[in-house]
Amino acid sequence: MQARHARDVLRVVPGQDLRIGIVDGPRGMGRVLRADAEAVELECMLDTDPAPVPDVDLLLALPRPKVMRRLWAQLAALGVGRIILTNAARVERNYFDTHVLDPARYRPLLVEGLQQARDTHLPRVTIHRRFRPLVEDELDALSSADLRLVAHPDPGADAIAGAWTPGAGRVLLAVGPEGGWDEFELRLLADRGFRIVGLGPRPLRADTACVALLAALRAGRDARVPGTPHASSPAS
Amino acid sequence: MQARHARDVLRVVPGQDLRIGIVDGPRGMGRVLRADAEAVELECMLDTDPAPVPDVDLLLALPRPKVMRRLWAQLAALGVGRIILTNAARVERNYFDTHVLDPARYRPLLVEGLQQARDTHLPRVTIHRRFRPLVEDELDALSSADLRLVAHPDPGADAIAGAWTPGAGRVLLAVGPEGGWDEFELRLLADRGFRIVGLGPRPLRADTACVALLAALRAGRDARVPGTPHASSPAS
Repeated sequence: MQARHARDVLRVVPGQDLRIGIVDGPRGMGRVLRADAEAVELECMLDTDPAPVPDVDLLLALPRPKVMRRLWAQLAALGVGRIILTNAARVERNYFDTHVLDPARYRPLLVEGLQQARDTHLPRVTIHRRFRPLVEDELDALSSADLRLVAHPDPGADAIAGAWTPGAGRVLLAVGPEGGWDEFELRLLADRGFRIVGLGPRPLRADTACVALLAALRAGRDARVPGTPHASSPAS
Repeated sequence: MQARHARDVLRVVPGQDLRIGIVDGPRGMGRVLRADAEAVELECMLDTDPAPVPDVDLLLALPRPKVMRRLWAQLAALGVGRIILTNAARVERNYFDTHVLDPARYRPLLVEGLQQARDTHLPRVTIHRRFRPLVEDELDALSSADLRLVAHPDPGADAIAGAWTPGAGRVLLAVGPEGGWDEFELRLLADRGFRIVGLGPRPLRADTACVALLAALRAGRDARVPGTPHASSPAS
Protein backbone atom coordinates (compact mmCIF):
# COMPACT_ATOMS: atom_id res chain seq x y z
CA MET A 1 0.00 0.00 0.00
CA GLN A 2 2.63 2.53 1.08
CA ALA A 3 4.90 1.48 -1.79
CA ARG A 4 2.09 2.04 -4.28
CA HIS A 5 1.41 5.47 -2.71
CA ALA A 6 5.09 6.41 -3.03
CA ARG A 7 5.21 5.31 -6.65
CA ASP A 8 1.83 6.45 -7.97
CA VAL A 9 1.00 9.51 -5.88
CA LEU A 10 4.35 10.86 -4.74
CA ARG A 11 5.92 9.66 -8.05
CA VAL A 12 9.25 9.04 -6.39
CA VAL A 13 12.41 8.57 -8.43
CA PRO A 14 15.73 7.00 -7.42
CA GLY A 15 17.88 9.46 -5.47
CA GLN A 16 14.92 11.28 -3.98
CA ASP A 17 14.63 11.74 -0.20
CA LEU A 18 11.34 11.08 1.61
CA ARG A 19 10.26 11.86 5.13
CA ILE A 20 9.46 8.49 6.72
CA GLY A 21 8.35 7.04 10.04
CA ILE A 22 7.54 3.66 11.55
CA VAL A 23 4.10 3.39 13.19
CA ASP A 24 4.72 3.65 16.94
CA GLY A 25 8.44 3.95 16.21
CA PRO A 26 11.13 6.41 15.15
CA ARG A 27 11.10 8.95 12.32
CA GLY A 28 13.69 9.89 9.75
CA MET A 29 14.48 10.09 6.06
CA GLY A 30 14.53 7.48 3.33
CA ARG A 31 16.48 7.73 0.08
CA VAL A 32 14.81 6.01 -2.87
CA LEU A 33 17.12 3.35 -4.32
CA ARG A 34 14.65 1.76 -6.71
CA ALA A 35 11.04 2.45 -7.69
CA ASP A 36 9.37 0.19 -10.25
CA ALA A 37 6.25 -1.88 -10.77
CA GLU A 38 7.31 -4.41 -8.13
CA ALA A 39 8.58 -2.40 -5.22
CA VAL A 40 9.97 0.83 -3.87
CA GLU A 41 13.29 0.26 -2.13
CA LEU A 42 14.51 2.81 0.40
CA GLU A 43 17.73 3.33 2.32
CA CYS A 44 16.40 4.42 5.71
CA MET A 45 17.93 6.73 8.31
CA LEU A 46 15.63 6.55 11.33
CA ASP A 47 17.46 9.00 13.53
CA THR A 48 14.62 10.91 15.20
CA ASP A 49 12.85 9.57 18.26
CA PRO A 50 9.09 9.21 18.12
CA ALA A 51 7.21 12.31 19.29
CA PRO A 52 6.06 11.99 22.91
CA VAL A 53 2.72 10.25 23.41
CA PRO A 54 0.05 12.97 22.99
CA ASP A 55 -1.04 14.52 26.28
CA VAL A 56 -4.79 14.18 25.69
CA ASP A 57 -7.06 11.13 25.57
CA LEU A 58 -10.50 11.51 24.04
CA LEU A 59 -13.72 9.92 25.29
CA LEU A 60 -16.14 10.50 22.44
CA ALA A 61 -19.83 9.70 22.13
CA LEU A 62 -19.96 8.02 18.74
CA PRO A 63 -21.01 10.59 16.11
CA ARG A 64 -22.88 9.75 12.92
CA PRO A 65 -20.77 7.66 10.53
CA LYS A 66 -20.20 10.51 8.07
CA VAL A 67 -18.83 12.73 10.82
CA MET A 68 -16.75 9.93 12.36
CA ARG A 69 -15.18 9.21 8.98
CA ARG A 70 -14.09 12.83 8.72
CA LEU A 71 -12.71 12.78 12.27
CA TRP A 72 -10.23 9.89 12.18
CA ALA A 73 -7.45 11.65 10.29
CA GLN A 74 -8.05 14.97 12.03
CA LEU A 75 -7.80 13.41 15.49
CA ALA A 76 -4.57 11.60 14.59
CA ALA A 77 -3.16 14.82 13.12
CA LEU A 78 -4.04 16.88 16.18
CA GLY A 79 -2.57 14.15 18.39
CA VAL A 80 -4.51 12.07 20.89
CA GLY A 81 -3.24 9.13 22.91
CA ARG A 82 -6.50 7.22 22.94
CA ILE A 83 -9.85 7.43 21.20
CA ILE A 84 -12.46 5.84 23.46
CA LEU A 85 -15.73 5.64 21.54
CA THR A 86 -18.87 5.17 23.59
CA ASN A 87 -22.59 4.86 23.37
CA ALA A 88 -24.76 7.51 25.05
CA ALA A 89 -28.48 8.23 25.32
CA ARG A 90 -28.42 10.52 22.28
CA VAL A 91 -26.31 8.19 20.10
CA GLU A 92 -28.29 6.11 17.63
CA ARG A 93 -27.63 2.40 18.09
CA ASN A 94 -27.12 1.72 14.38
CA TYR A 95 -24.07 4.01 14.33
CA PHE A 96 -22.18 1.06 15.83
CA ASP A 97 -22.87 -1.17 12.86
CA THR A 98 -20.99 0.87 10.28
CA HIS A 99 -17.83 0.15 8.32
CA VAL A 100 -16.30 3.27 9.77
CA LEU A 101 -15.62 1.34 13.01
CA ASP A 102 -13.78 -1.46 11.21
CA PRO A 103 -10.03 -1.21 11.92
CA ALA A 104 -9.34 -2.02 8.28
CA ARG A 105 -11.23 1.18 7.41
CA TYR A 106 -10.09 3.58 10.10
CA ARG A 107 -6.44 2.59 10.46
CA PRO A 108 -5.43 4.02 7.04
CA LEU A 109 -7.24 7.24 7.98
CA LEU A 110 -5.34 7.45 11.27
CA VAL A 111 -2.06 6.82 9.43
CA GLU A 112 -2.97 9.56 6.93
CA GLY A 113 -3.40 11.98 9.85
CA LEU A 114 -0.06 10.92 11.35
CA GLN A 115 1.69 11.44 8.01
CA GLN A 116 0.17 14.93 7.80
CA ALA A 117 1.38 15.81 11.30
CA ARG A 118 4.73 13.96 11.01
CA ASP A 119 3.92 11.85 14.04
CA THR A 120 4.12 8.08 14.45
CA HIS A 121 2.05 7.49 17.56
CA LEU A 122 -1.05 5.63 16.39
CA PRO A 123 -3.99 6.52 18.67
CA ARG A 124 -5.32 3.49 20.55
CA VAL A 125 -8.96 2.93 19.67
CA THR A 126 -11.55 1.11 21.79
CA ILE A 127 -15.28 0.90 21.19
CA HIS A 128 -17.79 0.58 24.02
CA ARG A 129 -21.48 -0.10 23.55
CA ARG A 130 -22.38 0.44 27.20
CA PHE A 131 -21.67 3.80 28.79
CA ARG A 132 -22.09 2.99 32.45
CA PRO A 133 -19.73 0.00 32.74
CA LEU A 134 -17.22 1.93 30.67
CA VAL A 135 -17.23 4.94 32.97
CA GLU A 136 -17.57 3.03 36.24
CA ASP A 137 -15.30 0.04 35.64
CA GLU A 138 -13.04 0.46 32.62
CA LEU A 139 -12.01 4.08 32.31
CA ASP A 140 -9.38 4.08 35.05
CA ALA A 141 -7.49 1.32 33.27
CA LEU A 142 -7.89 2.92 29.82
CA SER A 143 -6.59 6.40 30.59
CA SER A 144 -3.91 7.51 33.01
CA ALA A 145 -4.95 11.16 32.66
CA ASP A 146 -4.62 13.33 35.76
CA LEU A 147 -7.30 15.83 34.75
CA ARG A 148 -10.78 14.83 33.57
CA LEU A 149 -12.93 17.31 31.66
CA VAL A 150 -16.33 16.89 30.06
CA ALA A 151 -17.32 19.28 27.28
CA HIS A 152 -20.96 20.27 27.42
CA PRO A 153 -22.78 23.10 25.61
CA ASP A 154 -23.94 24.68 28.87
CA PRO A 155 -23.66 28.49 28.78
CA GLY A 156 -22.69 28.46 32.46
CA ALA A 157 -19.79 26.03 32.04
CA ASP A 158 -16.25 27.23 32.74
CA ALA A 159 -14.31 28.06 29.56
CA ILE A 160 -12.21 25.12 28.42
CA ALA A 161 -9.47 27.68 27.76
CA GLY A 162 -8.96 28.05 31.51
CA ALA A 163 -9.18 24.40 32.47
CA TRP A 164 -5.69 23.04 31.91
CA THR A 165 -2.88 24.58 33.90
CA PRO A 166 0.74 24.02 32.92
CA GLY A 167 2.07 21.05 34.86
CA ALA A 168 -1.36 19.52 35.44
CA GLY A 169 -0.43 16.34 33.58
CA ARG A 170 -2.41 14.51 30.94
CA VAL A 171 -6.07 15.23 30.17
CA LEU A 172 -9.00 12.94 29.44
CA LEU A 173 -11.57 15.00 27.53
CA ALA A 174 -15.12 13.69 27.15
CA VAL A 175 -17.10 15.02 24.17
CA GLY A 176 -20.80 14.23 23.94
CA PRO A 177 -23.25 13.62 21.11
CA GLU A 178 -24.58 16.58 19.11
CA GLY A 179 -27.60 16.84 21.42
CA GLY A 180 -25.29 16.82 24.45
CA TRP A 181 -24.93 14.36 27.33
CA ASP A 182 -28.09 13.64 29.33
CA GLU A 183 -28.46 14.34 33.05
CA PHE A 184 -27.64 10.78 34.09
CA GLU A 185 -24.48 10.72 32.01
CA LEU A 186 -23.31 14.09 33.32
CA ARG A 187 -23.87 12.93 36.91
CA LEU A 188 -22.00 9.70 36.31
CA LEU A 189 -19.08 11.59 34.76
CA ALA A 190 -19.08 14.12 37.61
CA ASP A 191 -18.99 11.23 40.11
CA ARG A 192 -15.85 9.96 38.38
CA GLY A 193 -14.07 13.30 38.61
CA PHE A 194 -15.04 14.99 35.34
CA ARG A 195 -15.43 18.77 35.48
CA ILE A 196 -17.81 20.46 33.00
CA VAL A 197 -16.21 22.87 30.53
CA GLY A 198 -17.46 24.57 27.38
CA LEU A 199 -16.40 26.47 24.28
CA GLY A 200 -18.87 29.31 24.64
CA PRO A 201 -22.37 29.95 23.40
CA ARG A 202 -22.13 28.57 19.84
CA PRO A 203 -23.21 24.93 19.51
CA LEU A 204 -20.94 23.18 16.98
CA ARG A 205 -21.18 20.05 14.85
CA ALA A 206 -19.38 17.11 16.46
CA ASP A 207 -16.35 17.18 14.15
CA THR A 208 -15.87 20.95 14.39
CA ALA A 209 -16.38 20.71 18.16
CA CYS A 210 -13.71 18.00 18.59
CA VAL A 211 -11.09 19.92 16.64
CA ALA A 212 -11.96 23.23 18.31
CA LEU A 213 -12.02 21.71 21.82
CA LEU A 214 -8.62 20.03 21.42
CA ALA A 215 -7.11 23.23 20.01
CA ALA A 216 -8.70 25.46 22.66
CA LEU A 217 -7.65 23.13 25.47
CA ARG A 218 -3.99 23.23 24.45
CA ALA A 219 -4.02 26.93 23.59
CA GLY A 220 -5.53 27.78 26.96
CA ARG A 221 -2.66 26.01 28.67
CA ASP A 222 0.00 27.41 26.33
CA ALA A 223 -1.24 30.97 26.88
CA ARG A 224 -0.34 30.55 30.53
CA VAL A 225 2.96 28.70 30.26
CA PRO A 226 5.54 30.85 32.04
CA GLY A 227 8.03 32.12 29.54
CA THR A 228 5.77 32.28 26.49
CA PRO A 229 4.83 35.80 25.52
CA HIS A 230 1.62 36.75 27.33
CA ALA A 231 1.36 40.15 25.76
CA SER A 232 1.38 40.51 22.01
CA SER A 233 4.21 42.52 20.58
CA PRO A 234 3.15 45.48 18.42
CA ALA A 235 1.81 44.26 15.11
CA SER A 236 4.28 46.01 12.88
CA MET B 1 -36.22 25.72 0.79
CA GLN B 2 -36.44 26.54 4.49
CA ALA B 3 -40.16 25.63 4.52
CA ARG B 4 -39.38 22.28 2.92
CA HIS B 5 -36.62 21.70 5.48
CA ALA B 6 -39.02 22.47 8.33
CA ARG B 7 -41.67 20.15 6.93
CA ASP B 8 -39.60 17.23 5.62
CA VAL B 9 -36.57 17.16 7.91
CA LEU B 10 -37.71 18.76 11.14
CA ARG B 11 -41.25 17.32 10.55
CA VAL B 12 -42.89 20.23 12.30
CA VAL B 13 -46.50 20.09 13.43
CA PRO B 14 -48.89 22.92 14.29
CA GLY B 15 -48.31 24.19 17.82
CA GLN B 16 -44.61 23.36 17.79
CA ASP B 17 -42.00 26.03 18.62
CA LEU B 18 -38.91 26.48 16.45
CA ARG B 19 -35.76 28.49 17.02
CA ILE B 20 -35.63 31.00 14.16
CA GLY B 21 -33.48 33.88 12.92
CA ILE B 22 -33.34 36.34 10.06
CA VAL B 23 -30.07 36.43 8.11
CA ASP B 24 -28.22 39.52 9.35
CA GLY B 25 -31.16 40.25 11.63
CA PRO B 26 -32.71 39.32 14.98
CA ARG B 27 -33.33 35.87 16.46
CA GLY B 28 -36.30 34.42 18.28
CA MET B 29 -38.93 31.71 18.28
CA GLY B 30 -41.60 30.77 15.77
CA ARG B 31 -44.76 28.83 16.59
CA VAL B 32 -45.98 26.63 13.75
CA LEU B 33 -49.53 27.62 12.75
CA ARG B 34 -49.79 25.48 9.65
CA ALA B 35 -47.52 22.95 7.89
CA ASP B 36 -48.74 21.29 4.71
CA ALA B 37 -47.65 20.61 1.15
CA GLU B 38 -47.86 24.28 0.20
CA ALA B 39 -46.28 26.18 3.05
CA VAL B 40 -45.20 26.32 6.65
CA GLU B 41 -46.75 29.28 8.43
CA LEU B 42 -45.13 30.59 11.59
CA GLU B 43 -46.08 33.15 14.19
CA CYS B 44 -42.74 34.82 14.85
CA MET B 45 -41.36 36.42 18.02
CA LEU B 46 -38.07 38.00 17.04
CA ASP B 47 -37.08 39.32 20.45
CA THR B 48 -33.34 38.63 20.58
CA ASP B 49 -30.84 40.99 19.02
CA PRO B 50 -28.39 39.55 16.51
CA ALA B 51 -25.17 38.28 18.07
CA PRO B 52 -22.36 40.84 17.80
CA VAL B 53 -20.38 40.73 14.54
CA PRO B 54 -17.68 38.06 15.05
CA ASP B 55 -14.37 39.49 16.22
CA VAL B 56 -12.20 37.71 13.64
CA ASP B 57 -11.85 38.17 9.88
CA LEU B 58 -10.16 35.42 7.89
CA LEU B 59 -7.78 35.90 4.97
CA LEU B 60 -7.51 32.43 3.50
CA ALA B 61 -5.39 31.12 0.64
CA LEU B 62 -7.95 29.19 -1.37
CA PRO B 63 -7.74 25.50 -0.44
CA ARG B 64 -8.60 22.66 -2.80
CA PRO B 65 -12.33 22.56 -3.61
CA LYS B 66 -13.06 19.49 -1.47
CA VAL B 67 -11.54 21.16 1.58
CA MET B 68 -13.22 24.50 0.87
CA ARG B 69 -16.58 22.78 0.60
CA ARG B 70 -16.07 21.31 4.06
CA LEU B 71 -15.01 24.67 5.48
CA TRP B 72 -17.96 26.94 4.64
CA ALA B 73 -20.35 25.71 7.31
CA GLN B 74 -17.59 25.27 9.89
CA LEU B 75 -16.34 28.85 9.43
CA ALA B 76 -19.87 30.25 9.74
CA ALA B 77 -20.48 28.12 12.84
CA LEU B 78 -17.24 29.24 14.51
CA GLY B 79 -18.06 32.84 13.61
CA VAL B 80 -16.04 35.04 11.28
CA GLY B 81 -16.91 38.52 10.08
CA ARG B 82 -15.34 38.16 6.66
CA ILE B 83 -13.89 35.38 4.55
CA ILE B 84 -11.35 36.89 2.16
CA LEU B 85 -10.23 34.18 -0.27
CA THR B 86 -7.00 34.78 -2.10
CA ASN B 87 -4.61 33.30 -4.57
CA ALA B 88 -1.05 32.51 -3.44
CA ALA B 89 2.03 30.93 -5.02
CA ARG B 90 1.10 27.48 -3.72
CA VAL B 91 -2.58 27.69 -4.70
CA GLU B 92 -3.45 25.94 -7.95
CA ARG B 93 -5.11 28.31 -10.41
CA ASN B 94 -7.90 25.92 -11.32
CA TYR B 95 -9.19 26.00 -7.74
CA PHE B 96 -10.80 29.32 -8.69
CA ASP B 97 -12.94 27.75 -11.40
CA THR B 98 -14.98 25.49 -9.15
CA HIS B 99 -18.65 25.52 -8.21
CA VAL B 100 -17.66 25.79 -4.59
CA LEU B 101 -17.00 29.53 -5.12
CA ASP B 102 -20.46 30.14 -6.57
CA PRO B 103 -22.61 32.07 -4.04
CA ALA B 104 -25.55 29.83 -4.95
CA ARG B 105 -23.46 26.90 -3.68
CA TYR B 106 -21.76 28.33 -0.63
CA ARG B 107 -24.52 30.52 0.78
CA PRO B 108 -26.68 27.55 1.90
CA LEU B 109 -23.59 26.06 3.55
CA LEU B 110 -22.91 29.30 5.42
CA VAL B 111 -26.56 29.42 6.52
CA GLU B 112 -26.30 25.80 7.69
CA GLY B 113 -23.34 26.80 9.87
CA LEU B 114 -25.24 29.79 11.27
CA GLN B 115 -28.22 27.60 12.11
CA GLN B 116 -25.91 25.19 13.93
CA ALA B 117 -24.35 28.02 15.95
CA ARG B 118 -27.63 29.98 16.42
CA ASP B 119 -26.10 33.04 14.83
CA THR B 120 -27.50 35.22 12.05
CA HIS B 121 -24.43 37.15 10.91
CA LEU B 122 -23.67 35.87 7.41
CA PRO B 123 -19.91 36.11 6.81
CA ARG B 124 -19.04 38.50 3.97
CA VAL B 125 -17.19 36.64 1.23
CA THR B 126 -14.83 38.16 -1.33
CA ILE B 127 -12.62 36.33 -3.80
CA HIS B 128 -9.30 37.73 -5.01
CA ARG B 129 -7.23 36.24 -7.80
CA ARG B 130 -4.24 38.52 -7.25
CA PHE B 131 -2.51 38.45 -3.90
CA ARG B 132 -0.36 41.56 -4.11
CA PRO B 133 -3.04 44.14 -5.04
CA LEU B 134 -5.28 42.57 -2.42
CA VAL B 135 -2.75 42.96 0.37
CA GLU B 136 -1.34 46.30 -0.75
CA ASP B 137 -4.46 48.13 -1.89
CA GLU B 138 -7.68 46.45 -0.77
CA LEU B 139 -7.17 44.89 2.63
CA ASP B 140 -7.42 48.07 4.67
CA ALA B 141 -10.89 48.72 3.29
CA LEU B 142 -11.99 45.09 3.69
CA SER B 143 -11.10 44.56 7.33
CA SER B 144 -11.15 47.00 10.21
CA ALA B 145 -9.17 44.60 12.43
CA ASP B 146 -6.74 46.15 14.89
CA LEU B 147 -4.46 43.11 15.11
CA ARG B 148 -3.07 41.28 12.06
CA LEU B 149 -1.70 37.77 12.40
CA VAL B 150 -0.40 35.35 9.79
CA ALA B 151 -0.38 31.65 10.60
CA HIS B 152 2.68 29.86 9.28
CA PRO B 153 4.01 26.39 10.12
CA ASP B 154 7.37 27.76 11.25
CA PRO B 155 8.62 26.00 14.42
CA GLY B 156 10.08 29.30 15.61
CA ALA B 157 6.82 31.26 15.33
CA ASP B 158 5.19 32.62 18.47
CA ALA B 159 2.27 30.50 19.69
CA ILE B 160 -1.04 31.80 18.40
CA ALA B 161 -2.36 31.15 21.91
CA GLY B 162 -0.39 34.13 23.18
CA ALA B 163 -1.09 36.53 20.34
CA TRP B 164 -4.42 38.11 21.22
CA THR B 165 -4.63 40.05 24.44
CA PRO B 166 -7.99 40.97 25.95
CA GLY B 167 -8.95 44.42 24.75
CA ALA B 168 -6.79 44.24 21.62
CA GLY B 169 -9.80 44.64 19.32
CA ARG B 170 -10.68 42.64 16.24
CA VAL B 171 -8.25 40.26 14.52
CA LEU B 172 -7.50 39.60 10.87
CA LEU B 173 -6.00 36.12 10.64
CA ALA B 174 -4.21 35.04 7.46
CA VAL B 175 -4.04 31.29 6.82
CA GLY B 176 -1.86 30.02 3.98
CA PRO B 177 -2.03 27.13 1.55
CA GLU B 178 -1.09 23.63 2.73
CA GLY B 179 2.49 24.15 1.61
CA GLY B 180 2.63 27.45 3.49
CA TRP B 181 3.10 31.02 2.26
CA ASP B 182 6.22 31.69 0.21
CA GLU B 183 8.93 34.17 1.21
CA PHE B 184 7.57 36.98 -0.94
CA GLU B 185 4.09 36.61 0.50
CA LEU B 186 5.36 36.54 4.08
CA ARG B 187 7.40 39.67 3.48
CA LEU B 188 4.45 41.47 1.92
CA LEU B 189 2.22 40.50 4.84
CA ALA B 190 4.89 41.56 7.35
CA ASP B 191 5.15 44.92 5.56
CA ARG B 192 1.42 45.39 6.08
CA GLY B 193 1.59 44.70 9.80
CA PHE B 194 1.04 40.93 10.00
CA ARG B 195 2.88 39.11 12.78
CA ILE B 196 3.76 35.42 12.28
CA VAL B 197 2.15 32.95 14.67
CA GLY B 198 1.86 29.18 14.71
CA LEU B 199 0.03 26.26 16.25
CA GLY B 200 3.09 24.21 17.12
CA PRO B 201 5.11 21.55 15.36
CA ARG B 202 2.31 19.48 13.77
CA PRO B 203 1.44 20.51 10.18
CA LEU B 204 -2.34 20.24 9.70
CA ARG B 205 -4.63 19.95 6.69
CA ALA B 206 -6.13 23.33 5.72
CA ASP B 207 -9.60 22.66 7.14
CA THR B 208 -8.31 21.25 10.43
CA ALA B 209 -5.83 24.13 10.63
CA CYS B 210 -8.53 26.80 10.13
CA VAL B 211 -10.79 25.38 12.83
CA ALA B 212 -7.89 24.80 15.24
CA LEU B 213 -6.39 28.27 14.64
CA LEU B 214 -9.69 30.07 15.23
CA ALA B 215 -10.33 28.05 18.39
CA ALA B 216 -6.78 28.47 19.70
CA LEU B 217 -6.78 32.20 18.98
CA ARG B 218 -9.93 32.79 21.03
CA ALA B 219 -8.96 30.34 23.76
CA GLY B 220 -5.58 32.01 24.17
CA ARG B 221 -7.30 35.32 24.76
CA ASP B 222 -10.01 33.86 26.98
CA ALA B 223 -7.43 32.13 29.18
CA ARG B 224 -6.09 35.57 30.04
CA VAL B 225 -9.32 37.51 30.46
CA PRO B 226 -9.30 38.92 34.00
CA GLY B 227 -12.04 37.27 35.98
CA THR B 228 -12.09 33.89 34.25
CA PRO B 229 -10.56 31.15 36.33
CA HIS B 230 -6.86 30.89 35.53
CA ALA B 231 -6.26 27.94 37.81
CA SER B 232 -8.35 24.83 37.40
CA SER B 233 -10.48 23.92 40.36
CA PRO B 234 -9.97 20.41 41.73
CA ALA B 235 -11.52 17.85 39.41
CA SER B 236 -13.97 16.36 41.84
